[in-house]
Parts: sequence; C-alpha cells; structure tokens
Amino acid sequence: MARKIIIIGHGPAGMTAAGFASRTDRTARITILNAEEQDIYHPCALPYTIGGQLRIEDIIERARYPKITLMNNTRVISINPQEKNVTTVNKEGKELIFEYDALLIATGSEPLIPKRFIKGWDKAGVCVLKTPQDAQEILKYAKTANTAVVVGGSAIGIEVASELACAGINTTMIELLPTLMPGRLESDMSKTAQALLETEGVVVRLSQGVTEITGQIKVESVIAGEEEFPADLVVMATGVSPNTELAKTIGLEIGEQTGGIKTNFRMETSIPGIYAAGDCVETINLITKSPMPMWLAGIATRQGRVAGINMVGGSELFPGALAAWIVCAHTFSVGGAGLSIDHAKKEGFDVVSAKLSPLLRPHYISPEKITVRLIADRVTGQLVGGQAIGKEGVAATVNYIVLAITGELTVRELTKVDWCYAPGAIECVNPLARVAEALLIRM
Amino acid sequence: MARKIIIIGHGPAGMTAAGFASRTDRTARITILNAEEQDIYHPCALPYTIGGQLRIEDIIERARYPKITLMNNTRVISINPQEKNVTTVNKEGKELIFEYDALLIATGSEPLIPKRFIKGWDKAGVCVLKTPQDAQEILKYAKTANTAVVVGGSAIGIEVASELACAGINTTMIELLPTLMPGRLESDMSKTAQALLETEGVVVRLSQGVTEITGQIKVESVIAGEEEFPADLVVMATGVSPNTELAKTIGLEIGEQTGGIKTNFRMETSIPGIYAAGDCVETINLITKSPMPMWLAGIATRQGRVAGINMVGGSELFPGALAAWIVCAHTFSVGGAGLSIDHAKKEGFDVVSAKLSPLLRPHYISPEKITVRLIADRVTGQLVGGQAIGKEGVAATVNYIVLAITGELTVRELTKVDWCYAPGAIECVNPLARVAEALLIRM
Repeated sequence: MARKIIIIGHGPAGMTAAGFASRTDRTARITILNAEEQDIYHPCALPYTIGGQLRIEDIIERARYPKITLMNNTRVISINPQEKNVTTVNKEGKELIFEYDALLIATGSEPLIPKRFIKGWDKAGVCVLKTPQDAQEILKYAKTANTAVVVGGSAIGIEVASELACAGINTTMIELLPTLMPGRLESDMSKTAQALLETEGVVVRLSQGVTEITGQIKVESVIAGEEEFPADLVVMATGVSPNTELAKTIGLEIGEQTGGIKTNFRMETSIPGIYAAGDCVETINLITKSPMPMWLAGIATRQGRVAGINMVGGSELFPGALAAWIVCAHTFSVGGAGLSIDHAKKEGFDVVSAKLSPLLRPHYISPEKITVRLIADRVTGQLVGGQAIGKEGVAATVNYIVLAITGELTVRELTKVDWCYAPGAIECVNPLARVAEALLIRM
Repeated sequence: MARKIIIIGHGPAGMTAAGFASRTDRTARITILNAEEQDIYHPCALPYTIGGQLRIEDIIERARYPKITLMNNTRVISINPQEKNVTTVNKEGKELIFEYDALLIATGSEPLIPKRFIKGWDKAGVCVLKTPQDAQEILKYAKTANTAVVVGGSAIGIEVASELACAGINTTMIELLPTLMPGRLESDMSKTAQALLETEGVVVRLSQGVTEITGQIKVESVIAGEEEFPADLVVMATGVSPNTELAKTIGLEIGEQTGGIKTNFRMETSIPGIYAAGDCVETINLITKSPMPMWLAGIATRQGRVAGINMVGGSELFPGALAAWIVCAHTFSVGGAGLSIDHAKKEGFDVVSAKLSPLLRPHYISPEKITVRLIADRVTGQLVGGQAIGKEGVAATVNYIVLAITGELTVRELTKVDWCYAPGAIECVNPLARVAEALLIRM
C-alpha cells in the first residue's frame, strides 16, 4: 500500500521535504497542508518588494508538483499521534481529517514583537514582514510616507531599512543592542556595515530601546531613549520565534533555550512517525554541538531534504549547521558563518582573530575591496568563524569560510589552498588567503 | 652577519619569495636579479591589453620594496654552487658576481613553439604572448589586421582569440586536440565554451594541426588540414616549457615527464642552499601525488612564499596543488580544478560524474545560469575534480571545488554544506549542492 505522507506547512522546509519524499518513493501519496492562500512564495525576497526591486507577484508561484497534493487555506487544528491523523479546518470552517504514515511539522516561525516593552505597538502603520500580505501592508503606508522607523538591526531590518531609504523615505533604524546583526557581527564589522547603510541614507541608532510608538489611531512617531523619531510607517524587525503551537499540543519536546522543537539527526521528533524541520525546530551548531537559534531558509531546505528522504523509508542525516548568513542591502552585502569572537569565548574557545580589507581583483582591474574577519581556535589552528562585507564577493567568501570550517582546515592550510586566479575574475592571492596569512602571523 | 639571499627572476614566484624572506628575516640582504628591463609586470593580464581593456603600461609597475635590491637588465650566466655565487652580465656586457647564502631559481617558463611541425613559424606577424614586448608586437600587427589566427586552445589562446574577435578582427582559433583546454576540460564542457567563444565571433577549429604559415616576409595565411585561413597576424599559444637552462648547467634534477626542476616540499632542489619555485619547477598533484605540468601564477606565488620563508631559516611546506585554473573571455569564464575524467581514469580511479546548469540566483532575480560538472571517486565518495562555465560565479565555484577537495569532502557531505543564501546574492540550494545531489543519485 502506498505510504501516506502529510506535511504541515509549505515554506522552504515543507516544499523541499515533499520534493525529496516524492523523488525517493515514487508511489508515496504526499499531501501538503498549507494554512495560507498562496501556493508558494519566497519569504527571503520580501524585503526587495518594499523598494520596488521586485513586485510582490514576482515572488508568488503556482506549485507544479504532478504527484503532490497541495491543500491551500487548510489549517491544522489538531494532531492525533495515536490514531495517526490530523484534523484541519478550511476557509469555510469545514473540518477535514487526514491520515498519515509519517507526518512532518514544518510550521515555520512568526514575527516576534516585544509587546511588553513597546507601548503602542498595535497602532495602524506598525507592520511586520513575513508574508506577501505584510509586504502589501508596508507598501500601502510607504506610498505616502515621508518618514519611517525600522525597529531591529538584524537581516530583515537592514534589508527593509535599505529599501525604504533608497525609495526616498527618511528612514531611521533603531537597534537595542550595540551592533547590527547582534551576536553575529563583530563590533568593528558592524561599524563598517553601519557606515555603508548611512551612505544609503539610513539613520542608525544602536544601543537604544524603543519604548513607545505614539499616534492617535495611526503611528506618528517612535520614542527611543531621549529621542523621538517621526514615523509614518514602522517596521518591527525584532526577530522571530518558532511556531510550535501544534507541537506543544501533542507534547513534543521543545528546546528550553531556543524554543524550537527537538529532533534527532534524522529530523524525527520525540514521537515516532512525526518529523519536524525548518524554523520551528532547533538546530545543532556544528562547532559547539549545542542547539542555537538559526532561523534560515537554507537550513530549512537542508532539514526538509533529510526529513523528506527519511519519511518514506530512506536514510539520511542532518549533521547540524554553521548559521551561514548573508544580508543584501542596496549597495553592499554583509555575511558570516560559524562563531563570533564573543560566542566562541563563551563556549570556552581560546580564539585569535584578524581582519583585512584586501582587493578582490588586481588594482589595475578594479579598486573593489572586501573586508574579511577570520576567527580561529588558537589550540587546533582551525577556523571557527568569519565575516565579510563588500559590494561584491561576499557570498563566495562566506561559502569559503563555511567549506573551510566543514573541511576542518587550519589557518595554515588556508594560506596554501590552491585558489584559482585570473586578473579578470579574482586576485592572485585570494582575499581569504591574505587574511589567513595575517591570522597565522598573529598566532 | 646578515644572510645573503639571491633570487633569479622577478615573476610571481621571485617577487613573492623576496617579500616573504624580507618579512621573515628583517636583517636579510635580498637581491633580485632580473634579466628583463621592467621592474614588475603582470603576465596573466597581458591578453586583456590586446583588445584594449587595459593599456600595456597599466600592468607594468615600479617595485617599491624598501629593503630589497632589484637589479634589472641583469642576466645570470652561471651559478657556482661550490663558491656559492652567481655571475651576471648587464646590458652593457659588464660582468658582476653576487655571493649567496641561499639562492632561488625562479626563471619561469618560455613560450613553446612546435617549430619542427609548423613551417614558416618565423615569419613577421607570427607572435607569442609572454612579455609586454610581445603584447606590443601583437598590437602593432593587430592595428591593421583584418584577419588573425590563434594557434592553441588553452588559456592564453582562448583569452587572446576572444580579445581579437571583440576588437573586430576576423579570428580563427585552431587547436590540435579535440577539446579546448586539452586535458582539463571534458568534451561537453569544451563544447559549451566553444559555443560561447563562437558567439563572440571566434571561428573554432578543433582536432586540426597547423602545418604551415605562408607568406613572403610577412604572414599571409595559416594552413591546417585541408583548410587555409587568411591571417594578417598569428598568435602562437602552443604552450610553455619550464626555463631550466641555468638549472641544467649545475646538474639540478629535472623531472622527466614535466621538464621542471625537482624540489622537495620545502622547495629545495637537489643541491643544498639552492631553492626553486614557479613555472620552472614541477609540482605535485595533491590527488595523484605525481608531478604534473601546471604553470600557473597562483601556484608560483604559493611556492615562492614557502621558498622565501625557508631561505631565511623559517619553516614552511608546499604540499602540492590541484591545478585550479580560470580563463576569462570577454563574455564568459571557464575554469576547473583537480582531475578530469580521463586523467582520473588513467590514474586508476573509478569515477562517477554529473553535470547540471542550475540558476545562480532565484529565477525572479536573474536568469543567469552556471554549468558545473563534478567528478568523484566512486569508492571513497570524495570529490576529485570539477569544472564550471558561465558569465558569473565561475571563480567562486572553482574555489568551492578546490576547498571541497582540500577538505576531503564527500559528495554526500557537499549536499549538506551550510551554504549561505539570500535571493540577491545566491540561490538557496547552491549550484554546487545541486550538482552534488545529482551525482549522489548517480552513485
């Protein structure tokens, strides 16, 4: 008899799991239960719609899976692990029960607003950015806005602030902690990113907590510390939290520190037959071996792949992740992977670090530079983290760092890597090799 | 007493060795003996001067080493390993003797013209491209040329043909072997590169040996097989051979297969105190552990670094190389690293390979694709080689392949690497991960 596979959620984890399950077992009956109305949309591309680089409809797609059933507007209201079924309700309030042999919870994450600390968060014009509907809401206010405040200096905050400023709106970004991308970016790297963001026209305020959003029905200003910033639009980019509501109703184990569902390396939860993947689970950091919050689409797809293969009787493991990230503002990108210096120290590593801004290509070809910081374990000499900022080459450099950490390369080995070279493409001594050399001298 | 360091040759190996020797021992007296007239020039950028992307003077530099003596127009005519000195002759024919504690032979390579097989190779208008003088010579003929023939389909041949065609000259490239980049590029990848080169206007003839260059004093046509190609200019890009003339006079061991000077991992030759680096030495392939011809500037700098450090009493090893290469034509790049399928088979590997042309970024951002072929060892599952072609992302992809081989990653591990993702920068499933997935299925 054909395996019945139920997938709750149609984000990167759910989509990928469905694809791999279908490819692994061509007879499996795969059903995706999607609470939203669109077939597929690309959440990571939503910020680009704010400044008009993309239209919202560009990032919404029809699903074209011949062998997978996609049920939109179908919200799961309960799971029965004993009977192995889930109960859903559709737009019209009609209940429908689906049986499963294997179930995947891929319910993603939700925007987290610190409602306790910010008065007036519920005024009109205070938005989040997680769905196409959210983007539509932001665009509605942005159309007539002269001023905007983005609360939060992480990925979505940086991208949205950059988009709003480049669209000609006077934009202020306010971050509670002393750096952009808190916990991921060293303070000097944050300063470089801040300067580039300011060049785009964004006013950046760090170490300032927003206490109040003023206005009658609609937002008029944002108060942070002693300052008041006029705002016709506020975007709350204050983080996300794993959506584990359903998981909790059936008693799945939840990570205390991360709030994500616990899984094993096969992406199985604490209940047999029930898998979980994506933003709703906690992910093991490959270096520290501890769970850490990393709500990233790339990780979701890789977890979805493993869950999808295992749900139909295949065998694959998800070893963990390095939290590799990249943020694309209008005129620059910033990214990183592995541990920051502070994080590494907290985990007991004796680290040594170096930073340089080498040329990407020979000076006679292009003046473009990339700023790279590498962090290594003084004892083993192995790379444990790194960050990069520049107009070009950031994704490649972050991926070099990822591959170097994955391959357990030492800093000394990095100086000897046989990088390719052509003046038109990349400098003879790769920027990463140059920083590795500086780091080696420091060690 | 200060160490006396003599370096013969001022290419990438010699330059880098001088820099690292000076940095490692700040008291060392370092002298570079340079037979040419320019301080420094960048040989790999010479092709770009042919189409006018760069001027020749852009890639010639004054040396600015405060603590290194650079002697231009100073040709070494003999080495005396017993007395530890070298005899030089300058432009005026004056002899000068230099004593050394450590000597580096970094005499590079020379264009190799198959004179025995090609009649008329010495006619006016038949050029090579190795020095700025060569580029000047080519430019002199190119100025009035309507037609050109490039003999040889390797790196310099592809770049020069692309430049000549894009400058509006009817250009034919003739390669003796059945593929471009013979021995490095699979035949289907070669076909893709050929099609792109043809789009630029280059007529490509493979599997054709040039037998004669016709003309009175000046070249008029090139005969290959049954065909005759009119040519106001011919560029011979028929390979290089290590310049080992001096090395042979003192009996240094030379590799039989490669023709390069043999060194140990410290870049020492068979005579104590004499080091060698760059195009004049043979290099161990990191995968096969056998010497193979790889005359590449990146390898030269890394060997120069190791030689420079060791010559002043430091301790560093050069483990070998993967022959990572990249060629930049006007509208596309092509590159690779490690072993080709045929090479791997010859070395006894049971290989499996896959090729795909995935999107570099999400389809709603850019339609740009990259063609990637990966080659793995069926027994260990480890990557042993790969090649890439595209308008963008080729250098990064080649370097991913290099890092994966260096870190001994298996194809399965490559599907799980924690690549970074942002729609503006790179696709969620990295192109390399997508090809690795296809390869894994094939395995």
